[in-house]
Amino acid sequence: MKLSNKVNAMQFSPIRKFNPIAAKAKEAGKKVYHLNIGQPDVETPECFMEAIRNYQNKVIAYAESGGNTELQDAVSDYFKGYGMDFGREDMIVTNGGSEALTMTFLSIINEGDEVLIPEPFYTNYHTFATSAGGKVVPITTKAEEGYHYANREQIEACITDRTRAICCISPGNPTGTVLTLDEMKLIGEIAKEHDLWIIADEVYREFAYDDRPMTSFGMVPEYADRVIIIDSVSKRFSACGARIGLLISKNHDLISSVMKIAQGRLCVSTVDQVGAAALFRLPKEYYDEVKAEYCGRRDAAYEELMKIPGVVCQKPGGAFYMTAKLPVDNVEDFLMFLLTEFDDNGETVMFAPAEGFYATPGLGKDEMRIAYVLKKEDMRRGVELIRLGIEAYNKKKNS
Amino acid sequence: MKLSNKVNAMQFSPIRKFNPIAAKAKEAGKKVYHLNIGQPDVETPECFMEAIRNYQNKVIAYAESGGNTELQDAVSDYFKGYGMDFGREDMIVTNGGSEALTMTFLSIINEGDEVLIPEPFYTNYHTFATSAGGKVVPITTKAEEGYHYANREQIEACITDRTRAICCISPGNPTGTVLTLDEMKLIGEIAKEHDLWIIADEVYREFAYDDRPMTSFGMVPEYADRVIIIDSVSKRFSACGARIGLLISKNHDLISSVMKIAQGRLCVSTVDQVGAAALFRLPKEYYDEVKAEYCGRRDAAYEELMKIPGVVCQKPGGAFYMTAKLPVDNVEDFLMFLLTEFDDNGETVMFAPAEGFYATPGLGKDEMRIAYVLKKEDMRRGVELIRLGIEAYNKKKNS
Repeated sequence: MKLSNKVNAMQFSPIRKFNPIAAKAKEAGKKVYHLNIGQPDVETPECFMEAIRNYQNKVIAYAESGGNTELQDAVSDYFKGYGMDFGREDMIVTNGGSEALTMTFLSIINEGDEVLIPEPFYTNYHTFATSAGGKVVPITTKAEEGYHYANREQIEACITDRTRAICCISPGNPTGTVLTLDEMKLIGEIAKEHDLWIIADEVYREFAYDDRPMTSFGMVPEYADRVIIIDSVSKRFSACGARIGLLISKNHDLISSVMKIAQGRLCVSTVDQVGAAALFRLPKEYYDEVKAEYCGRRDAAYEELMKIPGVVCQKPGGAFYMTAKLPVDNVEDFLMFLLTEFDDNGETVMFAPAEGFYATPGLGKDEMRIAYVLKKEDMRRGVELIRLGIEAYNKKKNS
Repeated sequence: MKLSNKVNAMQFSPIRKFNPIAAKAKEAGKKVYHLNIGQPDVETPECFMEAIRNYQNKVIAYAESGGNTELQDAVSDYFKGYGMDFGREDMIVTNGGSEALTMTFLSIINEGDEVLIPEPFYTNYHTFATSAGGKVVPITTKAEEGYHYANREQIEACITDRTRAICCISPGNPTGTVLTLDEMKLIGEIAKEHDLWIIADEVYREFAYDDRPMTSFGMVPEYADRVIIIDSVSKRFSACGARIGLLISKNHDLISSVMKIAQGRLCVSTVDQVGAAALFRLPKEYYDEVKAEYCGRRDAAYEELMKIPGVVCQKPGGAFYMTAKLPVDNVEDFLMFLLTEFDDNGETVMFAPAEGFYATPGLGKDEMRIAYVLKKEDMRRGVELIRLGIEAYNKKKNS
C-alpha cells in the first residue's frame, strides 16, 4: 500500500530516537539524567486540576470550535496585564501550540512556498511546514554569535519570491535566544517590505532572564495585520499534557479562515479548557517565582558547562534550553558512548544532539541542546557528567 | 495578506451557519428544538470524570505521542470483547476521530488524489481531504434506496487512476445506513482489485438497531492491510468534549508513518486519556442500555416523520441520524421560515439542511438531516413541528 510523498518526507523526532537506548541503560541499572527533553519537573499549579475536579456538567459536550469564552476571556485578561489588547475575536483555542502552527501553515502556505526559520530550530517545524506542502528555508545562526539572527542582510539573503513567512521563536527553542523589541521592529519592517507573515512562537514568553524585559510581537502594533502569535499553556504553566494552545491575530481574514479548519476538527478538550482558564488567571507572582527557579537552573547549568575546556556557548537569555558546541568530533557518537559505555558512580546523562535542529546538512554535528528543566543540583550533576563523559570519550578516541 | 488556496477552498460548516438565526429566535422568546446537531443529551458515564478526579500526578506531563498504554490496553480489551485483535502496536490515540481522519488523509493522499465517499456524507470530510491536497469524489446515493451504496457497478464507475481510498462511515452520518458484513467483504474485494485503502469510520459502531449484528471492518481480516479504522469516544460514550479518537490499522507501515505526524503534535490530552480509559472498560450492558434509548428515539422520530404526507425516508438502521426528503421546494428556505416566521405555541425546530452533505452541486436541496439525540418526547414534538411547519410553509408559498 502506497503512502503519501508528504508523510514519506517527514522525519521521526530526532530527540526521541535515543530513547530505547536510554531505556536499556536504565534497565541495566544506570541512573540517567534527562537533559534531553523539555518536560519540566515543575509542578503544574494546583488550580488546573482543582478547576477540573469542580466541573459539574453531566454531559461532556462539544466546546465551541474557536474555544470556550471563559478561556478566551481569561487569555484576554492575561494579555491586558501586559498592556496588549486581544479579545475573543482575535483568537482560536487549539490543541496545543502544535495545532496552532499546523493551522497557521495550512492557512498561508501553497505547495512549494517557503518559510524562513532561524536554525537551529524546534524540529517539529519541519513536520508542520511539510504537512502544508511548504519548505523550510533556514537562516543559519552560530554558537559563537549566541545564535542571533535579527540582521537585515542575513534575513534578506534568504528571501525569494516564494517566501511567505518568517518564524520567530522567542525566547527560542533550542537556543534560548531572546529578541529585543527593537529586533522585533526590524523583523516587522523586513516582513512588511517583502510582504511576509510573521509567525511569532511565544510559548516561553515569560522566561526572559537578567533584567531582559518580556517582549512580544503583540507589542509591535504597526505590523499587527501580519503577525500570528502562537501560544500555549505547556511551558508557562508546566502543563505539557494539557493540550491547550492559541492562535492569536489581529488579521481577521486569517482568523476567519483558520475557523474553517477549527470547525473541521470540531473542538478542543472541554476539561483541559476548564483547567487552562484557571491557569491564565494566576497572579503575576506565579511567573516571577517560576522564572526565578529556571534562571537559577540556567546559572547552575551554565556554570558547570563553562568548566568544560573548549565548549562554545553564550549564556542564553531565555526559555529553558541552551545549545552548545562541544569539544568532540561527533555529538551523536558521544551520546551513544554516554548511554552504552560510560558511567560515573552508576550515573550517566542524556542530551539532544543538535544536528536534528538544523535544516542545512552537515551543521550541528558537534552541538548539543540541553533543557534545564530539572532541579539545580540535578542540572549541576547532569552537566558534570557531560564533562566527565567528554574526558573519557576523547581519551578513548585518542588511545 | 494572502491566504493559501487550500484554506480558501474550504467551507464553513453548513450545519452551523443557521446558528445565529436560531440564537435570535431564542432571544425573541421562542423555544427551539435542536435536531440539527449530533450532541446527545445522554449523560457521559460518571466513570469519566471520576477517573480524572482521582488522577494524582503533580505534573500534567506530555503523554506518549501514540497514546498512553493504559488507554491503549483498555481499547485493545474492548475490541477483544468483540473477537477482534488490536494491540498497542496497531493504534494511535488521536485528538478525536477528526484528527485520526486528518492524519489518515495526510498519510495516503498526494496532491490531486481522489477519495471515494458515498454522498450525502459528513461534511468535514471535505476539510480533511482538502487539507491533504485531495479531492472528494462522491458515490451518489438516494433517499428512495435508503442511501445504500454497496454496489459494485456504482462504486467502480467512480474509480479512476487517481483514486486512492474509499471511505465508509458505518453506521452512517448523516443517513444512518449500516453496512452488513457481506457488504464490507464486497467493498474489501473491490478495494483489493483497485488497490485502494479502506477508511472505515466506525465511531457509531454499537448503534445498529433491529437485530442488526454489530459489524466492523476489523471483522474482515482478509483485507486488514488496507483497512484504517477510525474510532472515537464522542458518540459511543456521549463524551464529545473529550477529544479522544483512534486510528487503528494492521498496516504497520501506515502506523509508523502516522507516528511521525503524531510526534509532531506531541500528544493528546493527558486527563482526557485517563477518563477515556475508564470509558472503554465499561461493561457491555452500557452499550445495550444506550442503544435501546437511541432506538426508542429513532422509532418515535420515524413514526412522527411518517405522518408527513410526501416525505421520503427509509427507516435508518443505525447511528443517530436520519436523512429525509421533504415535500418542500427548498429546505434551506424552509428552515429559515421555521426560525424566523413560524411557531406553534411559541415553539419551533431546527434541522440540518442536507445540501451541505452532498458534493454534487444541486443535490440535497429538498432533504434534511435530523439527529435523534434528544429524549423521545422531544423528538416527537420536534418532528411534529417540522410537519406543522411544512403545512404553514406550503400554504404561504401557494397563497
